[in-house]
Amino acid sequence: MALISSKNWMAHYQKEDFRGDFFAGVIVAIMLVPQGMAYAMLAGLPPVIGLYASTIPLIVYAFFGSSRHLAVGPVAMISLLVYAGCSRLSTPGSGEYLSLVIMICLIVGALQVLLGIFRMGFLINYISHAAIRGFTSAAALVIFSSQLAHIFGVKIPGGSHSIFHTVWELIRNLGETNLLTLLIGGLGIFILLLLAKKFPHFPAPLLVVVIGTLGVFVFKLDKAGVGIVGNVPSGLPSLGFPKTDISTLKTLMPVSLTILFVGFMESIAVAEMIASREKYKLNSNRELLGLGLANLCCGFFSGYPVTGGFSRTAVNHRAGAKTPLASIITGILVILTLLFLTSLFYYLPRAILSAIIIVAVLGLFNLKEGVRLFRIKKTDGVTFFITFAITLAFGVEKGIITGVLFSLMLFIWRSAHPHTAELGYLEKEGIFRNIKRYPQAKTFPGVLILRVDASMYFANMAFIEDCIRDKIEEYSKLKHIVFDMEGVNDMDAEAVSILEELMEQYKSRGIRFIFASVKGPVRDVIKKAGWKEKYGDIERLSLKHALESQGENSPPPKMST
Amino acid sequence: MALISSKNWMAHYQKEDFRGDFFAGVIVAIMLVPQGMAYAMLAGLPPVIGLYASTIPLIVYAFFGSSRHLAVGPVAMISLLVYAGCSRLSTPGSGEYLSLVIMICLIVGALQVLLGIFRMGFLINYISHAAIRGFTSAAALVIFSSQLAHIFGVKIPGGSHSIFHTVWELIRNLGETNLLTLLIGGLGIFILLLLAKKFPHFPAPLLVVVIGTLGVFVFKLDKAGVGIVGNVPSGLPSLGFPKTDISTLKTLMPVSLTILFVGFMESIAVAEMIASREKYKLNSNRELLGLGLANLCCGFFSGYPVTGGFSRTAVNHRAGAKTPLASIITGILVILTLLFLTSLFYYLPRAILSAIIIVAVLGLFNLKEGVRLFRIKKTDGVTFFITFAITLAFGVEKGIITGVLFSLMLFIWRSAHPHTAELGYLEKEGIFRNIKRYPQAKTFPGVLILRVDASMYFANMAFIEDCIRDKIEEYSKLKHIVFDMEGVNDMDAEAVSILEELMEQYKSRGIRFIFASVKGPVRDVIKKAGWKEKYGDIERLSLKHALESQGENSPPPKMST
Repeated sequence: MALISSKNWMAHYQKEDFRGDFFAGVIVAIMLVPQGMAYAMLAGLPPVIGLYASTIPLIVYAFFGSSRHLAVGPVAMISLLVYAGCSRLSTPGSGEYLSLVIMICLIVGALQVLLGIFRMGFLINYISHAAIRGFTSAAALVIFSSQLAHIFGVKIPGGSHSIFHTVWELIRNLGETNLLTLLIGGLGIFILLLLAKKFPHFPAPLLVVVIGTLGVFVFKLDKAGVGIVGNVPSGLPSLGFPKTDISTLKTLMPVSLTILFVGFMESIAVAEMIASREKYKLNSNRELLGLGLANLCCGFFSGYPVTGGFSRTAVNHRAGAKTPLASIITGILVILTLLFLTSLFYYLPRAILSAIIIVAVLGLFNLKEGVRLFRIKKTDGVTFFITFAITLAFGVEKGIITGVLFSLMLFIWRSAHPHTAELGYLEKEGIFRNIKRYPQAKTFPGVLILRVDASMYFANMAFIEDCIRDKIEEYSKLKHIVFDMEGVNDMDAEAVSILEELMEQYKSRGIRFIFASVKGPVRDVIKKAGWKEKYGDIERLSLKHALESQGENSPPPKMST
Repeated sequence: MALISSKNWMAHYQKEDFRGDFFAGVIVAIMLVPQGMAYAMLAGLPPVIGLYASTIPLIVYAFFGSSRHLAVGPVAMISLLVYAGCSRLSTPGSGEYLSLVIMICLIVGALQVLLGIFRMGFLINYISHAAIRGFTSAAALVIFSSQLAHIFGVKIPGGSHSIFHTVWELIRNLGETNLLTLLIGGLGIFILLLLAKKFPHFPAPLLVVVIGTLGVFVFKLDKAGVGIVGNVPSGLPSLGFPKTDISTLKTLMPVSLTILFVGFMESIAVAEMIASREKYKLNSNRELLGLGLANLCCGFFSGYPVTGGFSRTAVNHRAGAKTPLASIITGILVILTLLFLTSLFYYLPRAILSAIIIVAVLGLFNLKEGVRLFRIKKTDGVTFFITFAITLAFGVEKGIITGVLFSLMLFIWRSAHPHTAELGYLEKEGIFRNIKRYPQAKTFPGVLILRVDASMYFANMAFIEDCIRDKIEEYSKLKHIVFDMEGVNDMDAEAVSILEELMEQYKSRGIRFIFASVKGPVRDVIKKAGWKEKYGDIERLSLKHALESQGENSPPPKMST
């Protein structure tokens, strides 16, 4: 498959698609302009950076990505990660801060392109959804609390990523609340929530932006202390490349990797949802390439990291977008806005932007999902809530990393303590089952049938060895121990050594090991270890075969089937 | 089980055991005195520290450990790790260096005691033996090369842990070789190797120590530039506690953890070997407690980290030790040596100590083991050689950590790309098998039987989903897809979601999913997810049951058995 197949949709563009693409492109642009400014503010950047990030990257993605509906641009979660990563190293708003952000954007872009070229898109699979969902819910709370200060018109000493600190500082400074700002912000939230409920298709953010801006302009509220966006430079960003050195690159690597994976995760999740609904196939490596090139261009044009946004993609699809042309139209409209309309944003109150952010992230807070996960599978629920708690208590970066590592360690831990079962025979059904769950299952004198529900490898062999030894001690006159190997999907050299040790040790006590239903990959290992030469014919096709033929030294216990 | 069961052997001590214990205690002491001094030198410490570490810790372990034969004391691998960890932070031989080492000893001891009390001994299982063996072979080379300088009597600028650097510096400075030193060292190695081969039970180290010391003393070789041990302070160490702060503790944590796990691994490996031969049971948590208390005491009495040594434990067992009393006798003999015999070591040439170290570690270098692992299971061989290479190229700490993480990641990676098989029916045998391995297996029209050889969880669901979709597209008139769930040992909420998505999507195309031979733990998850309510009766006891009854909308394909 060619990496660049953008020609597909361009070569086969059909006239009748244009109406949908154009309409969707306009709708998304109307949504994106206020959101872009708001999210840039969340990232600790001047609002215009959010607009820059909403131009070229969209057009680049349209040419290289594999989703036909993905709306690329600034998103809340990434903006929060940018703030968390950079505010520790520099003062938000400073030139140094901006160049750090641009560096991150370039690192993320370059790594995404590399991962795409080397087809490493599968790496995303190692991120547990339970962890991502716990993280998202917590991040929504963190974003919410960070915006409260703007809504109350209160200044909070920056740099904190723990929600408790933010809320505490807010309470401490509540006396300085600017009531007009609070009124504007509160009204903004109210209108946004109301419209979202009553007229979900109406571009509510644009409305509150217009109302808010007019309000401030007419009543000169900026003189009364209402924070406004102020001067937004008009025109397009110039091409540039930040100066940097290896040690800065190293410092920025953890946050860049976090942004890369969280951003890619959000993007591919929504892209796949739409793709499966529209019945076309995504290519995760092309997605990485598309997003990577978008971020590289974004970095060169003074933007900040972008990805496919959840809500705007849904809007794009619902508004009738058929091809990536919709995104190109959105990009062009934002460019026109930058060229001709930036002066209109002068009186836009920051509290309105905060209101837009708050309403956007409210939907991401979803503890019920954690409860649902907990109900279906306890470990998933635990992953959700641990990620949630760590994100709240120690910040977003530590939260997501803890969540991802925790879910993987949990998997390893579980595999190190595998489920084992002693089996008996259900005569009517003709199958073998756990005698604990089926007490009526028939057992055979002198024979222990043991099922190990895990691949055998170094981390669980100590456990399995103990289990085998304990079981053997339970029986006094054991002659055969038959392993049901259906659940043993793989085996490593360590498992081979320990089983050999056991076989040799119990040989002297007259106990013979039989392995039934051995799977291909395991059979290969056993063959290479030379078990046939060492221990004779100890493999059987199935448990039935094992029980019918296991007696070379003792008479076989006949099965009554 | 009581944590302290040392009273067992003391209360039931039998007179006839004393002969063996006494003899073994003496033999091990004769071996330990030169080894202790040599290993201390390897760790960058004055030789007397090695003797200190061979006193109280042995007696403490005898009271608290669970092995009856383990010979605790300084070992080569740990000494190397101590040197690697501390020579980066301070100059070997300085007072600061010594207090860092003592801190490490206390940290290791405290953590071991904690892990033992909280019964975390199982953590050791997560360390792959393939990684440990690769590490050991590489560490043997590193130790070997580090001792060459002493044998040649050449000074090498310290602090390097890369073998290439050490060897390069040795070659660069070869012109300064002290021929007398080389002669002594070479002769020492020759005698040690010869005696090890001809008279393996003879205490060869003592002999070369005596010969070397006499040689230097008689011919005044120290005046000719042969490095000697010099003044070894007599008497017992005083009780002390090093001054420290949190930041030093933090710095020492990685090396302490490495020493803890590598040391525990070496100790438990040899202890288990002897225990299984003597038919008694070890308790890994009691082992941790015993070693931890030994290290704590060792730290308080100016020692450095100890663990159960491989060769001395084997000698102890072979020499007839029956109870931990043998170790107590060894400890007392070393104390007597410290009190009365230290002046004898003044003329002991350092090259002899190096010769003892070199011969001791030669047996640890074993690349054949890597080849054997590679033959049985490629991934184990890869783990061995990667750990080996990283240890050589980047030093022992990075090597062991890389090895441990690599082996775990490999396991996750393999579980994310599970083996899958399409099954057919072997009529004669009455079993289902992979149609690729058994082309004669019978298939059924309109029915796809799919076996997934892995637990289903977030990291492999993308792979499994692709596999299912591809298989479905291969068949045109598919009515049923039957999953053989024998190999699916567990399932998480993510797997449930994706399977639900697939079932709903293919329902419209008239394809029904059937799950056969579902294991208990998986059945519990399916039940909680409410599949019976959502999708009806889609579970079957076995593949046979599934194929006999799957046709609720289509006639069942009769099986000809």
